[in-house]
Amino acid sequence: MREWRRGQPLADIDTPALILDIAAAERNIRRMAEAHPGPHGAAAGAGHPGHAGRPVRLRPHVKTHKTPLLAHRQLAAGAIGVTCAKLGEVEIMVQAGIRDILLSSEVVGPAKVGRLVALSRHARIHTVVDDLGAATALSEAAQAAGLRLPTLLDVDVGQGRTGVLPGEPALALAQALARRPGLEIVGVQGYEGHLQHIADPGARAAACQKALQLLVETAEALRAAGHDIAIVTTGGTGTHAAAGGHPGVTEIQPGSYVVMDAQYGGVGGLGFEHALFLLTTVISKTRPDVAIVDAGWKSASSDAGAPLVHGTDGARYVFAGDEHGRIHHEATPNPPRVGDKLLLVPSHCDTTINLHDVYYVVRDGRLEDVWPIAARGQVQ
Amino acid sequence: MREWRRGQPLADIDTPALILDIAAAERNIRRMAEAHPGPHGAAAGAGHPGHAGRPVRLRPHVKTHKTPLLAHRQLAAGAIGVTCAKLGEVEIMVQAGIRDILLSSEVVGPAKVGRLVALSRHARIHTVVDDLGAATALSEAAQAAGLRLPTLLDVDVGQGRTGVLPGEPALALAQALARRPGLEIVGVQGYEGHLQHIADPGARAAACQKALQLLVETAEALRAAGHDIAIVTTGGTGTHAAAGGHPGVTEIQPGSYVVMDAQYGGVGGLGFEHALFLLTTVISKTRPDVAIVDAGWKSASSDAGAPLVHGTDGARYVFAGDEHGRIHHEATPNPPRVGDKLLLVPSHCDTTINLHDVYYVVRDGRLEDVWPIAARGQVQ
Repeated sequence: MREWRRGQPLADIDTPALILDIAAAERNIRRMAEAHPGPHGAAAGAGHPGHAGRPVRLRPHVKTHKTPLLAHRQLAAGAIGVTCAKLGEVEIMVQAGIRDILLSSEVVGPAKVGRLVALSRHARIHTVVDDLGAATALSEAAQAAGLRLPTLLDVDVGQGRTGVLPGEPALALAQALARRPGLEIVGVQGYEGHLQHIADPGARAAACQKALQLLVETAEALRAAGHDIAIVTTGGTGTHAAAGGHPGVTEIQPGSYVVMDAQYGGVGGLGFEHALFLLTTVISKTRPDVAIVDAGWKSASSDAGAPLVHGTDGARYVFAGDEHGRIHHEATPNPPRVGDKLLLVPSHCDTTINLHDVYYVVRDGRLEDVWPIAARGQVQ
Repeated sequence: MREWRRGQPLADIDTPALILDIAAAERNIRRMAEAHPGPHGAAAGAGHPGHAGRPVRLRPHVKTHKTPLLAHRQLAAGAIGVTCAKLGEVEIMVQAGIRDILLSSEVVGPAKVGRLVALSRHARIHTVVDDLGAATALSEAAQAAGLRLPTLLDVDVGQGRTGVLPGEPALALAQALARRPGLEIVGVQGYEGHLQHIADPGARAAACQKALQLLVETAEALRAAGHDIAIVTTGGTGTHAAAGGHPGVTEIQPGSYVVMDAQYGGVGGLGFEHALFLLTTVISKTRPDVAIVDAGWKSASSDAGAPLVHGTDGARYVFAGDEHGRIHHEATPNPPRVGDKLLLVPSHCDTTINLHDVYYVVRDGRLEDVWPIAARGQVQ
């Protein structure tokens, strides 16, 4: 088994190890909560200026950190609930006592419908739909269980992924769903995922306004047709300010801000800190300008490119297989030696966290605790 | 919890699910074993023609499947032991009763040295070294425990990753190691990882011969200097025939052949079958030529590109986030509908398997069992 000792210095942690800088994560959680203080905060004069009387609520996406201990910190800071990507994540959050959840992906197939109904006996689980057949199956199962599931229309605001098209198609689906007694239409969901990483804050905000308008206008059209659309939810880490500041949006669901990553590090104007690192050891050094470290594709995700080397100017990481990486250090003053440890900044936090069983939780350079990443691998 | 029922049809398994076609895997295991029957098989007239009296032994790499149940099948088919990439994998294999293991990566740092020594009380664990300092630390720990660790020189045969350079640098390291009483130098390891995916069999074999020559000549030089080099190990799925047929090679360590993947599917002349699939469900269908499925980067690795769609001519998979993929089906006769299930062939087996907790083991289209991927996530 792997050994660890509370209080041991960061540099003594065995590798590869996913490091959570808990003080930085706590600051990130606080900053996002302060940016979106909710109705209570607004009454006290905080919140968005353009949002009088109905400031946005924060419902962080836990697909990033997958960890109830962090979700509970977000709730304690003022979040009204959490957002999950998969039913497996919902299960972990329900078991951790969280009682207000948005499942942001469509629930399709009898196995998942059965699980959602079973979980809905414990918590208020909002689900999303974009297909009449799938929604009908959901309604029938809920009705048979004596339940009515709070349901949002998933609207495609330009990402071209899931979601009914805004306007008429959304209205037609809502009208049909109104006759499904197991479902209660309570809102609409959009997600401008394709805009999250636009580097320039102004360009990002402008593009986001167009997507938000599609969503908000759809909500208005549904209200005009008699639907009680209480929830209008959207927004990620890159668009939390634009979405949270839009008067038609009632909830936002950012996830990555808690820990950040190299990809979001290149996005301007966000104001969150890197709190996630991968500690890796130099295990081989037989060539002049390259060191080999013990972290490859099985420790750091590659879907958003390579991790960055942290704190070593001029050093670059290049993937070298499942369990190896090359550190090119031509431009660094002190070449790394065998046994040296380096910190990497993951390129994409969600997919890197999903590779690890635990966070090594570090504060002030020392190991405070080891936390299970309880929802890791919950793809179903 | 996720439900499953022995005997249920493949199409009823909830998704995303990693499917192991166990009959195909069994055939792959048998084919590789028949290609390299070892000394016993050779005595009966089988084995490689150029290999009289000393045919190569098979020591499959379990970093691919990470599962003792499959490792034991490989041993039952004639493998002399297994190869692991990480100490965490060694631990799982030792706990599963496997007693002859090659750890193909360098062991660096006091935590890992301690684990290796502890595990060496249960099994014969061959380790590899390419650095005098790291090897000295290993030797001292082994000596303190009253052990002598079977050790191979890791030699860089052109991959440019780990390994001492062949020839003089290897000889110098071996001479220095001969004075380290906790280590017993028993062999050399190479790995022509950069040649595994050369599509043309002839070009691949020719390139492989050059790499093999560097390794075998290094072994000869060490023998000439008085070292008892009993093991010369190298070879992956792409080079198993060339490596296994070289008279100077004593062991090969292929891994991917058991299940294969899209990347190896493009490599000519291998003769193994796809035994690994990802079952995924269409969860959204709101646009004409695209269907959205429930498998993204958290279910299928992307380091070797996108998975292939299996059994649906003309359909293409494109990643669409952590938990989504787009199926472009302009060219298919029957467009997929919400609820339909599709099989994908992962682009890279090792990194895709590492994302999943279990194999759904299917035989003749029905679920035979669910197996834990016991060494998943063992990056330390």
